[in-house]
Amino acid sequence: MRIDIITVLPELMQSPFNASILKRAKEKGLVEVHFHNLRDYTTGNYKQVDDYQFGGGAGMVLMIEPIDKCISQLQAEREYDEVIYMTPDGLTLNQGIANELSLKQNVIILCGHYKGVDQRVRDMFVTREISIGDYVLSGGELAAAVLCDAVIRLLPGVLNDETSALTDTFQDNLLAPPVYTRPSNYKGQEVPEILLSGDFPKIEKWREDQALERTSKKRPDLLK
Amino acid sequence: MRIDIITVLPELMQSPFNASILKRAKEKGLVEVHFHNLRDYTTGNYKQVDDYQFGGGAGMVLMIEPIDKCISQLQAEREYDEVIYMTPDGLTLNQGIANELSLKQNVIILCGHYKGVDQRVRDMFVTREISIGDYVLSGGELAAAVLCDAVIRLLPGVLNDETSALTDTFQDNLLAPPVYTRPSNYKGQEVPEILLSGDFPKIEKWREDQALERTSKKRPDLLK
Repeated sequence: MRIDIITVLPELMQSPFNASILKRAKEKGLVEVHFHNLRDYTTGNYKQVDDYQFGGGAGMVLMIEPIDKCISQLQAEREYDEVIYMTPDGLTLNQGIANELSLKQNVIILCGHYKGVDQRVRDMFVTREISIGDYVLSGGELAAAVLCDAVIRLLPGVLNDETSALTDTFQDNLLAPPVYTRPSNYKGQEVPEILLSGDFPKIEKWREDQALERTSKKRPDLLK
Repeated sequence: MRIDIITVLPELMQSPFNASILKRAKEKGLVEVHFHNLRDYTTGNYKQVDDYQFGGGAGMVLMIEPIDKCISQLQAEREYDEVIYMTPDGLTLNQGIANELSLKQNVIILCGHYKGVDQRVRDMFVTREISIGDYVLSGGELAAAVLCDAVIRLLPGVLNDETSALTDTFQDNLLAPPVYTRPSNYKGQEVPEILLSGDFPKIEKWREDQALERTSKKRPDLLK
């Protein structure tokens, strides 16, 4: 999989891609992530990427021209399955969308910043608008990093133990059951006895019951 | 505001806090963010922070002892309003929660990793469990960065133009209206005439209509 990220703040995004699972996925050659600084696609001396919005009001807007240049140049080099724009008014990311995107070959992710991008960018270039949740961030960069993490960890070979992602919360519309590790007694707080029993069919049943109970209590909407 | 982040991967979180708005907020003294590496709170020679889960199954679990040590040490130094655990089965973050958290003084954020933390950590220390959305990430680090960004940008003085956050998507349960900037004609795509009219009451009315229309179309659930 190849991901091209277009941003005015590539420096904001460095560390999440150079640690842990994303780093390992890159090193294993399972994903390529390229950053494109929008300022490299400007024409004027001032490397201007944003401007005041027409009609007045607070907040700057990312201009269409550098974005057009960057996307067009990438699209001239290869075919892209999606041009994704990260925006709080996009479709809310969920595990199903992450699963679906993990099957794509080439994806462009455009990070909004300030008040967002000129609406014509969305009309002319963007194939999919994604939000990571109902809250506002300073920019689309962290949202793009979140999306990449959710998608890249699903690529075959990225997680050490492939069964690990399958038992995650949301993959079966259930929250995960509680987990415990050593010591079995910590300051008087005991691990549930069943988990120490070695009776694996019973443990499996207990986990299913716990997952269901936790989901009905905390997220009944997932069971509908 | 003071935020203490407990993590096994502090290096993953560096760049988001050293760029853009979070950097400015720290430089202006509006927020202090401290990272605590869980490995510094281990006792054994191997600096072990995680272990296999009781009852078997894929994925490691963060152990209670180092977390207890770290939280207890912090709580001995000052009073904390919240100990937040980032987990996909927590309460889903929204703008209202971000607004509420922006009023707190001292907050601890614990990042889950691998399969999560020992359940006893949640029972004994955590006051609030937050998810940033219905998808699974490799760890709580990016989720914590997202939460911090959503909260810190709301602190008075952080955004240059304070009216900017008030007109954001979600603050009034409406998606933001479309925005445009120069040029007014780009490859034949025109900016809506009304925005060039200079008639500000009419522009205001147009924006309200657009926000309402966009919300009914894309997110009717927000209007309920």
